[in-house]
Amino acid sequence: MDAEDYKVKDITQAEFGRKEINLAEVEMPGLMSAREEYGPQQILKGARISGSLHMTIQTAVLIETLQALGAQVRWCSCNIFSTQDHAAAAIAQAKSAAVFAWKGETLLEYWECTVRALDWGNGQGPTLIVDDGGDMTMMLLEGVKWEKKYEANGELPEPERAESEDEQAFLTILKREIQQTPNKFRNYVAQVKGVSEETTTGVHRLKQIAAKGELLFPAINVNDSVTKSKFDNIYGCRHSVIDGIFRATDVMLSGKKAIVCGYGDVGKGCAQALKGQGCRVYITEVDPICALQACMEGYEVVRLEKVVKDIDIFITATGNKDIITAQHMSQMKHNAIVGNIGHFDNEIDIKGLKQWEGIKRIQIKPQCDQWIFPDGHGIIMLAEGRLLNLGCATGHPSFVMSNSFTNQTLAQIELWINRDNGKYGNQVYKLPRELDEKVAVLHLKKLGAELTILTNDQATYIGVSQNGPFKHDDYKY
Amino acid sequence: MDAEDYKVKDITQAEFGRKEINLAEVEMPGLMSAREEYGPQQILKGARISGSLHMTIQTAVLIETLQALGAQVRWCSCNIFSTQDHAAAAIAQAKSAAVFAWKGETLLEYWECTVRALDWGNGQGPTLIVDDGGDMTMMLLEGVKWEKKYEANGELPEPERAESEDEQAFLTILKREIQQTPNKFRNYVAQVKGVSEETTTGVHRLKQIAAKGELLFPAINVNDSVTKSKFDNIYGCRHSVIDGIFRATDVMLSGKKAIVCGYGDVGKGCAQALKGQGCRVYITEVDPICALQACMEGYEVVRLEKVVKDIDIFITATGNKDIITAQHMSQMKHNAIVGNIGHFDNEIDIKGLKQWEGIKRIQIKPQCDQWIFPDGHGIIMLAEGRLLNLGCATGHPSFVMSNSFTNQTLAQIELWINRDNGKYGNQVYKLPRELDEKVAVLHLKKLGAELTILTNDQATYIGVSQNGPFKHDDYKY
Amino acid sequence: MDAEDYKVKDITQAEFGRKEINLAEVEMPGLMSAREEYGPQQILKGARISGSLHMTIQTAVLIETLQALGAQVRWCSCNIFSTQDHAAAAIAQAKSAAVFAWKGETLLEYWECTVRALDWGNGQGPTLIVDDGGDMTMMLLEGVKWEKKYEANGELPEPERAESEDEQAFLTILKREIQQTPNKFRNYVAQVKGVSEETTTGVHRLKQIAAKGELLFPAINVNDSVTKSKFDNIYGCRHSVIDGIFRATDVMLSGKKAIVCGYGDVGKGCAQALKGQGCRVYITEVDPICALQACMEGYEVVRLEKVVKDIDIFITATGNKDIITAQHMSQMKHNAIVGNIGHFDNEIDIKGLKQWEGIKRIQIKPQCDQWIFPDGHGIIMLAEGRLLNLGCATGHPSFVMSNSFTNQTLAQIELWINRDNGKYGNQVYKLPRELDEKVAVLHLKKLGAELTILTNDQATYIGVSQNGPFKHDDYKY
Amino acid sequence: MDAEDYKVKDITQAEFGRKEINLAEVEMPGLMSAREEYGPQQILKGARISGSLHMTIQTAVLIETLQALGAQVRWCSCNIFSTQDHAAAAIAQAKSAAVFAWKGETLLEYWECTVRALDWGNGQGPTLIVDDGGDMTMMLLEGVKWEKKYEANGELPEPERAESEDEQAFLTILKREIQQTPNKFRNYVAQVKGVSEETTTGVHRLKQIAAKGELLFPAINVNDSVTKSKFDNIYGCRHSVIDGIFRATDVMLSGKKAIVCGYGDVGKGCAQALKGQGCRVYITEVDPICALQACMEGYEVVRLEKVVKDIDIFITATGNKDIITAQHMSQMKHNAIVGNIGHFDNEIDIKGLKQWEGIKRIQIKPQCDQWIFPDGHGIIMLAEGRLLNLGCATGHPSFVMSNSFTNQTLAQIELWINRDNGKYGNQVYKLPRELDEKVAVLHLKKLGAELTILTNDQATYIGVSQNGPFKHDDYKY
Repeated sequence: MDAEDYKVKDITQAEFGRKEINLAEVEMPGLMSAREEYGPQQILKGARISGSLHMTIQTAVLIETLQALGAQVRWCSCNIFSTQDHAAAAIAQAKSAAVFAWKGETLLEYWECTVRALDWGNGQGPTLIVDDGGDMTMMLLEGVKWEKKYEANGELPEPERAESEDEQAFLTILKREIQQTPNKFRNYVAQVKGVSEETTTGVHRLKQIAAKGELLFPAINVNDSVTKSKFDNIYGCRHSVIDGIFRATDVMLSGKKAIVCGYGDVGKGCAQALKGQGCRVYITEVDPICALQACMEGYEVVRLEKVVKDIDIFITATGNKDIITAQHMSQMKHNAIVGNIGHFDNEIDIKGLKQWEGIKRIQIKPQCDQWIFPDGHGIIMLAEGRLLNLGCATGHPSFVMSNSFTNQTLAQIELWINRDNGKYGNQVYKLPRELDEKVAVLHLKKLGAELTILTNDQATYIGVSQNGPFKHDDYKY
Repeated sequence: MDAEDYKVKDITQAEFGRKEINLAEVEMPGLMSAREEYGPQQILKGARISGSLHMTIQTAVLIETLQALGAQVRWCSCNIFSTQDHAAAAIAQAKSAAVFAWKGETLLEYWECTVRALDWGNGQGPTLIVDDGGDMTMMLLEGVKWEKKYEANGELPEPERAESEDEQAFLTILKREIQQTPNKFRNYVAQVKGVSEETTTGVHRLKQIAAKGELLFPAINVNDSVTKSKFDNIYGCRHSVIDGIFRATDVMLSGKKAIVCGYGDVGKGCAQALKGQGCRVYITEVDPICALQACMEGYEVVRLEKVVKDIDIFITATGNKDIITAQHMSQMKHNAIVGNIGHFDNEIDIKGLKQWEGIKRIQIKPQCDQWIFPDGHGIIMLAEGRLLNLGCATGHPSFVMSNSFTNQTLAQIELWINRDNGKYGNQVYKLPRELDEKVAVLHLKKLGAELTILTNDQATYIGVSQNGPFKHDDYKY
Repeated sequence: MDAEDYKVKDITQAEFGRKEINLAEVEMPGLMSAREEYGPQQILKGARISGSLHMTIQTAVLIETLQALGAQVRWCSCNIFSTQDHAAAAIAQAKSAAVFAWKGETLLEYWECTVRALDWGNGQGPTLIVDDGGDMTMMLLEGVKWEKKYEANGELPEPERAESEDEQAFLTILKREIQQTPNKFRNYVAQVKGVSEETTTGVHRLKQIAAKGELLFPAINVNDSVTKSKFDNIYGCRHSVIDGIFRATDVMLSGKKAIVCGYGDVGKGCAQALKGQGCRVYITEVDPICALQACMEGYEVVRLEKVVKDIDIFITATGNKDIITAQHMSQMKHNAIVGNIGHFDNEIDIKGLKQWEGIKRIQIKPQCDQWIFPDGHGIIMLAEGRLLNLGCATGHPSFVMSNSFTNQTLAQIELWINRDNGKYGNQVYKLPRELDEKVAVLHLKKLGAELTILTNDQATYIGVSQNGPFKHDDYKY
Repeated sequence: MDAEDYKVKDITQAEFGRKEINLAEVEMPGLMSAREEYGPQQILKGARISGSLHMTIQTAVLIETLQALGAQVRWCSCNIFSTQDHAAAAIAQAKSAAVFAWKGETLLEYWECTVRALDWGNGQGPTLIVDDGGDMTMMLLEGVKWEKKYEANGELPEPERAESEDEQAFLTILKREIQQTPNKFRNYVAQVKGVSEETTTGVHRLKQIAAKGELLFPAINVNDSVTKSKFDNIYGCRHSVIDGIFRATDVMLSGKKAIVCGYGDVGKGCAQALKGQGCRVYITEVDPICALQACMEGYEVVRLEKVVKDIDIFITATGNKDIITAQHMSQMKHNAIVGNIGHFDNEIDIKGLKQWEGIKRIQIKPQCDQWIFPDGHGIIMLAEGRLLNLGCATGHPSFVMSNSFTNQTLAQIELWINRDNGKYGNQVYKLPRELDEKVAVLHLKKLGAELTILTNDQATYIGVSQNGPFKHDDYKY
């Protein structure tokens, strides 16, 4: 890629993207309300926002919301397969943001896009980060670390020692950048007022970094807003897991045996969707409380090894690695379907699969491959082990993303308006419960729901304000 | 179209189709078992089968099953939008059948394809018909009627007097054919040993025709095999209704209000799917028994007029006409979704919509249009009012179609082996219960289900044979 | 029992029964509508109705409906445990009918009650029969047979040769009656204008009898009215199966493994209820079509032997015998729950259980016993293997029984008004579809459901009358 | 009550209770495991435990577990209707505890029982409290307050100024006690090492007290253990709400409109159960996040006023007061069912109902009354507005209570073993996550569930120990 920006090669794509954005806006009442409420005052005026988050139609509505609030925006995707090209094209065409993302990037292109989205020219970096999974934040923080090593003793990243292809690509780009501009990342970090992070995985990484004292700017954990984690994880995946399976394979779920590895929020949504389509659903879990919840809903809690030969559909939703190994896949039924909706592609051992002696890969269609083992049995791999709902379908639907992204928007505002007052240190914060409840309110009207209002007397009786917040901090919803 | 056959313009299409056919075969155990059981004896040897049935991947497996049993096959689709071009290409490439079908035919092309699929050259017509909706049968029978009128007094079809665009196209082709070859259809009909019909609508038409004594060959009602009507109607639509909505609109169903017009088998499947995704489901019904069933499942039974302004998603599943009128659509919420999964596109008043003064149509993508009323509100129309699961998705999944098509295959065999023995007159017959149960048996193994076997004593006690059939004729399942 | 009639020993019982009858009337709109429509003309005037049907609160409303229509009524229960004493007391107190039924009859008392309910004094027998399971009809027909044998050669029933305790009691009573009044049953049968039968089992027996030409009066098969079989079997059992388990055992269903033997209508309702409470549900089936339906709903179809050691709750719903044997029970988990909701107590091998060497029985409470095997493990038997929903709970709820009993009422009217015109011969008939649909209409209003009315044009299009019936005879609902 | 202890008047009751306790033990694996693990060391030796918690069969197993661990126990119920007399009798007979509880206490008797359960004789009070709703704790703390006032200026509670009948009874007893033994409660409190509290309401009260610095001993909040709040509230109520309705009314839920006021954990369980039985479910909520969750599950979120005339079944589950007023009830349909499963009987305005001019009360059976308004329409009130699952059924089932009570047991142990080491101050604490997860583990085996074990590598990757705890503190499950 040698352009400053995404090429709008195909005007038809851009026009299609625009139509879909128009439709999505009707399904994203939270973001549209934010435009109404904060647009007139241009509350984000002066902010330079770099985002690394799946470049989809819904993200386009987020981007244009941030822009409508006064910010300038640069964007890349946080997944090599998740970009919807028509969404990217529409954003590029409208110049809503500079976009560096397309469906099917190589790993090298992926990190190239990330570094470009951070580069505002003339040494300028972002003042705010929107991150999903933590890759953009990691590039900044790792960049700073390596710059210091390089400055100290000329040490440089060694891509050839990387443990994964992904890490290799990352280190390749990092090495090049540091050689070119040895204080680039330190310069950027000095400008950053904060990051708002979208996912469980990203928050987990941020907390580990903060615990070591290595976080260099404030972070808001959007993931743990209830209207995010309990909504897009559960209800978004309830939609998109079957959408992804259907589009990729056209296989009937009724009567099939499906296993969901992990019964966290994502797993809960997936299991419910599969059950709703008539699957017999099995669960694997390490956490006994989640396992007991699965039992209470009528799922069979098993170890994968016990059932691997009988299952028709395998879905990983753990946020952990090495869940389905090549060894497992070698024992599966012919044409068992394997997909990941958890976090990274390391939930499924794609590397091991590729290295299996005598294995053959047949691409059925993009994001859907049949891998044939030497014994003749095949397995159907979705999205090359990456997020199947993004790779095989269009990700979460607009309405649920409106919840998440309204949280993102409120987080960006919170970081920006408090950028100089010391309210936030270099720690990981959650959005206050009031804002979380506000996000919910903004979405109820669209569904025709009417809230009951507490009387004064009732509010006093249970010891809350009439307008909320209504629950204590560790309420579990 | 000036070719003898479908053009395999795109070899990639054909290869893609072949891969999908290979996958589908694993999901269609009934058809594969039929090949094993009846293939060696070439039970359909000598049969010339003309089919008019959605030209999908699943149909391709049916076609190749008929071929494997010894038949020759010609095929067209029974819906202008339902052809999967890669399926057609694969069949054409393999010369499994002569194919006359592509996605997005005009109405004129549609009837042209039908007439071509009937024409085996040299005055030869089909010996067996596979029909879906009855269009191919109607062409034969109407053709015979008009031939007689033409012969009697030179009267010809008058396309300009047609009541619908579809009828106009039909009459145009018919007129041409009769003028060219005045005894073509009578010649064909003389060769036909029978038809097996796939759908409720088609069976209904056949029964009306038979009641008037106008049926000219035996018909087997495949639709009313339990393993057909209670399976593909319910479970197929449970899969494909949300698949179609998802692919066309990406809209989240959770929290939305959906109405299903008609609570027959198709409606039952749709309602369950929508409920499984978190919709609030409303039902309209004319039949009090079906309405009471809907109540018992927790659905709200209403008249459309009462709720038309509040509903987000409208699905017609009645098998009747004029269910959703343009007037209704003029009162809907902005971006309400409207789709038909019932039978013809007259369930929704597309004609009235087109004629609405000042209305504008914006194509979002193929099979998904936004129609904007003069007051500014739009509605999202799926598949131009035709079957949304075929137009917007890939129709029923393979496994359920394997049930239907195994019934079709057994029906074709039944007609063929009894072609000369007078077993079947010019009436509409159902398959015997034994064959129906056999179809089920052929599909249980794939799901890992194990049947219990009656002891002799138990069989005697309930008065059945140990091997079935197990139920009396009017058992409702 | 030496009284003419049920002893209203406990006035409090009668008053309690009356209150419950009053409440039930609100839940039985079909019967109350029948009183309004047919009461003024006293349509059943002159009819003497003998009924053998669980003497519950709902049956009380049926009895008083028949009375309100002009009939005289005598009643017994068709199950030794199913009588609700307060219902019987209320009926007796109000003299709505002569009642011969109490909870916990011996088998001898049971048949004594049946013979009393048939005896209208002075040689009068019933003119109409309401039967459930066919016991009253069998007494009449067997009575006639034995009378003829006795007359011919003095042969008498031999209770000591009976194959079951139940048959022994039956033959004991029969023997006594025939000796006392050798033409009693022939006399009765001569007066009978017909029977309406409530259950699958009873209809099955009637058809077998009719097939042999041994049916001596017309029979209406109420069971196969759609508003009966598809309503009380499915929805009634969906309610009462868990009601019975809860009341008898207080055991939590969530997370438990339950098996339902038989996936007919009763099994379908039970499985759905258990799933709704969070059970993992297994199914056994002999019929492949029903088995495939179970698969499509996500149930595991197995043979009992394979899972007998793992299941927590066993429910028989087959209408067949020897489904759960003592051998099975000897292998179950400690405190596995075993219950029957199918038909007779021979679905579970109670006899074999009693004869198991070294077994001990501990009554937890009435209708709930723990049987301890010599190895120390116990099983919990509900209602001594008889219908658990009647024995352990209060049977089907009023609303669903209103459907069944409105069919019964219409059947009694149909038999009565056609008693002399030869419309019905000695065969088994179903109620016409119009009356079936009428029953549904009478119940929709209570649920706030509104039917859509076909336009003339629509009715013509699908070839039905605007007011129904709407479906052809073998429509499966 | 003039006895030292519960009168075992009826030996049959006691024996029945013992049988049920035996059955319940099999369903309470957590408590039985605790006996095995902590019994041998008599870990609670020396503890005098006073409990105020529904005196049911499950509580009996808890009591005998505490006893098996070495404690002495005195017990009263925390609800005037919730005692199962056979459970109390069995405990009394076995001398497992001194019991002061029976079904249907007057309010005065209720508080008398509470004070008796606190009185260990010779000036001894309890060393540990098990509380449910906080009444026992309140008696101690209010007692201390009034003792001080009385000592200071002779001021005494004034029952005649009470705002409710309940408060009046409480103050009556308190006044008497203080006059008799002016330092009784201070003496008791000095001996108390802590309280473990069972419910949301009780915890709420404790937190308010602690916030004012008025808590006089440590408190462990058992309610907010995940294995308590997310289990007995949700799954317990999912069982017991329909059990209560069924036993009290025998009404069919299918097709009915039910409203659940409050969509917290209790409401979630109730709504799911009602939906599972075929109800159309409406929700009222004040908290927008919970309201949005309800929408996502397909429930209709409304204000009560809008639908009060259409609903068949009203369930309060809010933990707040004045949810259903007499005014509401005056507008309901005839025989609408009204019940509370939330907390106190003030969720429903029973007082207002009693005072409604011209109203009449007809007791159908204990815990089920019909109240007839002057206009002739009646409503069916369950359990006099108190907890319907306890009043009309047998409360939560054993398995889910085993979760709660294992938490209680661990909390009692935690308070006791740390009684002198200052680990706990006069604050409200939660059990550590490890113990919460342990409770889950103890219940999985019974359900045949197998946990997956993290590899070392996986544990490191997600930053947890292989044995847990697996989630951060504010994880929402």
